[in-house]
Order: sequence, then structure tokens, then C-alpha cells
Amino acid sequence: MTDIKVGLIGFGNIGAGVVRLLNENSETIRRKVGCGILLKRIADLDITSDRGVSVDPSILTTDVNEIFNDTEITIVIELIGGYEPAKTFVLRAIAAGKHVVTANKALLALHGEEIYAAASAKGVEVQFEAAVGGGIPVLSAIKGNMAGNRFNSIFGILNGTCNYILTQMTQEGADFDEVLQSAQQLGYAEPDPTFDIEGTDTAHKLAVLASLCFGTRIDFGAIHTEGITGISGIDISFAAEFGYRIKLLAIGKLSDDGKLEVRVHPTMIPLNNPLADVNGVFNAIRLTGDFVGPVMFYGRGAGQNPTASAVTGDLIAISRSITAGVKNRRAAPLGFLDSTVVNIPLKPVEEIVTSFMLRFTALDQPGVLAGIAGVLGKNGISIKSMVQTARHNGGQAVPIVIMTHEAAEGAIRLALEEVDSFEFISEKSRLIRIEDNLE
Amino acid sequence: MTDIKVGLIGFGNIGAGVVRLLNENSETIRRKVGCGILLKRIADLDITSDRGVSVDPSILTTDVNEIFNDTEITIVIELIGGYEPAKTFVLRAIAAGKHVVTANKALLALHGEEIYAAASAKGVEVQFEAAVGGGIPVLSAIKGNMAGNRFNSIFGILNGTCNYILTQMTQEGADFDEVLQSAQQLGYAEPDPTFDIEGTDTAHKLAVLASLCFGTRIDFGAIHTEGITGISGIDISFAAEFGYRIKLLAIGKLSDDGKLEVRVHPTMIPLNNPLADVNGVFNAIRLTGDFVGPVMFYGRGAGQNPTASAVTGDLIAISRSITAGVKNRRAAPLGFLDSTVVNIPLKPVEEIVTSFMLRFTALDQPGVLAGIAGVLGKNGISIKSMVQTARHNGGQAVPIVIMTHEAAEGAIRLALEEVDSFEFISEKSRLIRIEDNLE
Repeated sequence: MTDIKVGLIGFGNIGAGVVRLLNENSETIRRKVGCGILLKRIADLDITSDRGVSVDPSILTTDVNEIFNDTEITIVIELIGGYEPAKTFVLRAIAAGKHVVTANKALLALHGEEIYAAASAKGVEVQFEAAVGGGIPVLSAIKGNMAGNRFNSIFGILNGTCNYILTQMTQEGADFDEVLQSAQQLGYAEPDPTFDIEGTDTAHKLAVLASLCFGTRIDFGAIHTEGITGISGIDISFAAEFGYRIKLLAIGKLSDDGKLEVRVHPTMIPLNNPLADVNGVFNAIRLTGDFVGPVMFYGRGAGQNPTASAVTGDLIAISRSITAGVKNRRAAPLGFLDSTVVNIPLKPVEEIVTSFMLRFTALDQPGVLAGIAGVLGKNGISIKSMVQTARHNGGQAVPIVIMTHEAAEGAIRLALEEVDSFEFISEKSRLIRIEDNLE
Repeated sequence: MTDIKVGLIGFGNIGAGVVRLLNENSETIRRKVGCGILLKRIADLDITSDRGVSVDPSILTTDVNEIFNDTEITIVIELIGGYEPAKTFVLRAIAAGKHVVTANKALLALHGEEIYAAASAKGVEVQFEAAVGGGIPVLSAIKGNMAGNRFNSIFGILNGTCNYILTQMTQEGADFDEVLQSAQQLGYAEPDPTFDIEGTDTAHKLAVLASLCFGTRIDFGAIHTEGITGISGIDISFAAEFGYRIKLLAIGKLSDDGKLEVRVHPTMIPLNNPLADVNGVFNAIRLTGDFVGPVMFYGRGAGQNPTASAVTGDLIAISRSITAGVKNRRAAPLGFLDSTVVNIPLKPVEEIVTSFMLRFTALDQPGVLAGIAGVLGKNGISIKSMVQTARHNGGQAVPIVIMTHEAAEGAIRLALEEVDSFEFISEKSRLIRIEDNLE
């Protein structure tokens, strides 16, 4: 059987990993596919830098058209990231009748619908396992063996940079700024870490995950997204005192009212939940299906080798469907047939019901607790427990931490606004959402 | 598109789950496959008992031939378990040109080669995700998205009964017999639990897992298999003292010398490894691939609903390949093309190198430690640490626990035999293997 010919656009860190994997494991791949997977052409603006992998210089080009116009190339890998020119290149590959493998979560989160429709119309596949969770094969599992389930929920630790920072803050008691700096020195955080620490990258991945689990389009702009920049050491230690760990979670939940919650924010999870022990740059995704129950996937969520593993897995899947001589290619990049993908209405964040840890900073004087408790009560928020650690001789600001029973976020926000208008409040009050039952 | 017609052999607990899933989630399945999956015929010796699911009585039969002879039925599900008549039925289904879905690990562990060869010769698929890890889609992941990797190792907690018992012994400090009895009352252990507690069920699953990861045939009889019946509370508490938890692990490792270790035994794993926190009836599988690195899958390893999820996932995979009009079906039930499956030599257990916890029961008298240490030293076994808790006024037997550095199991066995010949030894000495680095 003749080899499957592949074109790669983007010869960066991940691209070099794919080149190395296809070199080193060519025999294993041949045993599994029945033919080789041959990288015939690599396009990049920079074709002179050493990427630390052996590659025949004659396959390198700065002209991406050499990939689109090569009729022997049946699969195109897009690894340049970002919106443009990635989108244009992916659509051109599809228009040329080529299958596409991409790791580009930003592109799929914002322009997935257009790309999937183009692929379906053309009868080609779009595979993107590397877009979520690096090497963890969670998307394949959702579309594949777990496809008989209706999913209830997704909880994901999807950004290694944030998880590394929160882990260091938790284990070393270090400050956010300090840890971010060391993460940058270690290469765990980008020079401009905004997309990671503000939660945008996690939200991109959640949009992809939720669309696969629930068979719905997701309006990316409607995902409630908060990063970890507001988390301080005091939040982490109070959370621990109450038996919780703080993680940046991507949450997707189908509510009883038929609406979908999709949100990204720092979340307190019980210490005895396996997600609480996912540390450092590792990622994990916990899903609950109506039959399979809770399932968790854990592994390296980024990096050259794990991401190359996921990209190669996609190449193998497409290569197998080519060698199998598939006649009627399914138009179902999300696992659901395109024609059956719906628009589940999203639940506004104000309507979301959960329990909260509230942290107030108030002058240490009589009447403070009564004032806060009164406002919470008026807004229908019931208090589960309370802690006030430091006690000074009056006058100084001290933290007051309150754990609530379940309440609607809208009510909590109103209450915090009212509390913050008290004169004895010296800093903006903080809320952290709690997930007690990750199902 | 016309519905895919399925025949089910074995209408027990799992079979009833599959019936219910196909009923309740028919619309979801239709959105993912493009047609329905219709259970056309169910064969069982007992067709009168109520299984708690709604089923048209006219599809029930006691004559399994009604499935084999029905030319409309393209997929046969085997859920009767055990070797016979399951093997005969599976081979008859294949001979009749039907695809097969089975959850039968015992059958595959002992007769997989014959079944896979028959399926390949006939050009039909055999899928068996439910055979390992219940609802956890680990086999699909190994054959699918992680296929680009060469795997180094497998560590699995694969038997819910054993893990429930060990968890209860650890958390409640209860005895083995006591916990087994309550597990039987709760339905977590069979009336005859031999296959579970002696490690046989785990070994069946390891045989299947290892064949997929390493592309090799496994001689089931050559898997070193020890169950949990010899584990006592004292082992668990000494392990905890040294920072370990005891789990019944399935271990598969490709050694540097090209030999394969496949073994099932109680194993001490570090408390900070995520596998140590897999409790109760949950299962988990940790794999390490050369590119993906360590990956862990966690979920319910048994039970009606999770197992039905895995069986249905297999049905969906085959249904998709039918609707896609596959021309050249791949003869690769293990993920590797049949023609490339090899026989990796297994490493004899005596050659396996690991560290050990050794527990001696000795009379409390002078010279005991010197005697034991002398024998270990003579056999090239170096001591890492030692603990001797109880101190009586001489005469009585006390436990002495020694942690070793890495040593070959053969040397350890020789040493224990020699130690056990000392007069001051009052019980057979015990060894528990340690896995410090689960990769």
C-alpha cells in the first residue's frame, strides 16, 4: 500500500515534535495503519532555524501553496495557531479536498462552525484532539466509545500554566506575581501570559469540549470567563481550612431546566476529589455521562511530545479511514452529525446556583458581622459557616470569611455590592465559587 | 438510512443495561450514527424473568440460532461470560459474517488469538471495550488516538472487588475476612469470589491490555498472578508508615532487555501517586507512552450502566463503519494489523528487579536482626530502612519490617527461604513488591 502523504503548515515546537514522532515511530505506525505516513512538505516562514530534528531540507518551503497544490498530499496539519492566517489556510486545505488536523483551540472556539461546515460540504475530515488536554485522548473518547451517553457535566483543569501557578501558590505559600515570574523563567508561562492567566485559553478549550459533549454550538463570547490573577494566598489558605483546593476549572453543565452552564473561573473543589490532586502542569478532565457515570482523564496537557502524540493519533485515524476505502464519509466533526447540532441556550451567570466562599475585608469594630449577615439574609443567602482569624485592638482591617449554602450568583452579587457600600469595608469583597459535587 | 440490526446473546444484568441504554438514548445515538441501532433478537435460556427493562417479548428467544440465521442481524453482542458456550457462539457469529461485541475478558485472555484470526479471515470486526475497566474507554484510546506511541508501561487497578476490600481495610482498619463478607452483602463481591480475590480476573484484563499496548500475544498461564488473600492489616499499616498504599496492581512493562513483564500482585505505591487515591469500586489505568508520557484513566470499572456504555460505544463504532461503507476492513482487533502481532518473550518473575517490603515474624531475642541482615547481605540485597515496633520482654514473636533497595526477586526468594529456616522465625516471611516510579 502506498504511503499517506501529509503536508505540515507551521514548523514550530509542536511541528518539530510531529516530525520526530513520525521518524522515530514509523515502524509502529506502519504496523497499525498498514502503510507509512509520510511528511511530504513542511511550510513555514522560517525554514533555516535548527529545530533539533532531522528533516530533509528539500521538503521545506516558505510557500504554503506547495502544500495546497500538491495533489498527492491528502492530509494537512495546521500548527501555526491563532486566528489568521490559520483560518484561511485551513479553509484552503479543505477547499483543495484535503483532510485537516489542527491543534488550534482558538480557531475552533471562534470559527469552528464555519470550518466544520466547509469540511462537511467537501466530504473531508477535521480532527483536533490536540486542541484540548494536549496528549490526553479525551475528545476521541467523547466522540467515540462514550458516544452512547448523554453527558451531564464537564469539569476540566485545562491550562498547565494556571495549574502550575496555583499548585506552587498552594504548596509553597508563594505569591502570584512571584510564581508567575518563575513559571516564565521555567518556560511554563509565555512572556505574555494574558491568554493563560485570564482564562481565555481555558475558555477556548471548554467551548470545544462542550460542543462535543452536548452536540451544541457555543457562542464563545457568552462563556463567563475569569482567570486566576485575583487569587491571593489568603484565599488559598482559607479554602484549605474549609477542606478545599482552588483550581481554575472549566465547567460545562446541562441544567434541569434544559439550559447549559459554561463558565471558567477559580473554583473550590473538595480535597478528596481526584481533581484536587492534579498538580503542576498536568491537565485533567472529569466528565459524567448518564450511563458511564463519572470518568476522569489525566495527563500532560501541553508540550512538544504529548501534543505530537495527539496530532499523530489524528493522522492515524484519518489514514485508517483512507486505507479502509470509506465511501460515505460522515459529516460529523463534533461526533454528532452536523445536521443534528443544536443551539442549547446558555444560562446567564446570575442564574447559576452554587455555594460560595465570600471574603470581606472590614475594620475590626462592633456591628460589622451583624451588618454583613443582615445584608446576606435580606438577599436570601444562608450562611453555612464563618471564620474571622485575626483580632486586633480595633481600627485595623481584618478578613472575614463566610461559607454560604447554595444561592443564585445574582443574589450574591447584589449582596456584595450592598456590603461594599458600608463604611467599615476597606477592600472590595471577593467571591469564590464552590463545586461540592462534581457531577 | 435503515437501522442497524443487532442480536444479543445473554440477557443478564449487563444485557439489561444495554437494552435500557439503547431505549433511553436512541435519539442521541441516531444523531451520532445517522440511523438507529435496533435490538432485533435477544437469546437467553431464561426469557421469563423480569429484568426491570421494557422489552418486546416477541424478540426474546431461547434458541440462539435465531440470531445466527437472521441475515438482517449484522452485529452480535455476547454477554454470557465464561469460556463455553461463549467461545462457540462468538465463533459461530463470526462464521455467519457478523461483527461481534463482547465484554468477555476470560474468553479473550485465553482464546483471543483464535477469535481474532477467525474475525480477520472473515472480514468482520471484534470489539471488546467493556472487557477491561468497565465504562472507562481505555482500549479505544490505546488502539485509537494514542496509537502513535510505543508504550513503556501499564499499571492498572482493574478489579473493583479487590479495590473495595483493600480500601475498606485501609480506611477502617478492618480485617480481610470481615470486609469480604460485607462486600458480598453489598453485592460488591460474588458469592464465590475466587476469580476476583485470587487475581485471575485482573490477570485476564492485563492480558488484553498488554496485547493492545505492545502488539504481542500473551500466554495467559505465564502471567505471574497473586491475589489479595494474603494481605493483612499489619501490611497495610506498615506500608502507610513508609508512605505507601497497597493496591492490587496489574503491571505490564517493556524492559530494556526487550522482555515483557506481566504480573498481578499486591503492590505498594507512593501515597502521592494519583493511583493511590483510586478508592472503592473505582478502576484506573495508568499508561506511559514514549511521546504522550503518563496518562491516567479513571472511572467505574464494573456495573450495569458503565458496562452498557462501553458495549454501546462498540456498537456505535461498528455501526459507523457499516454506514460509512467501508470497503477494506482492517484485520486489526488489537489495533496492530494481525500480521504484525509478535510474541515478545516474557520475563520470568525471578528476574524482575524492584524494591521490596519484607515482613519477618521473629522471636524477640538477641541475634535476630544480625541473622536476617546477614542472609540479605549474602544474597546481594541492600537494606534501605528497618522498623521493629513491638518490644516485649523476650520470648514473644514480633514483626520486623525491612525495606530493601532494588533487588532481583529471585535473590529475595532465596533469602526468605534461608531466613525462614532460622529457629527464631515463627511465621513464613512475607514480601510485598514496591513500585516507586510508575512509568
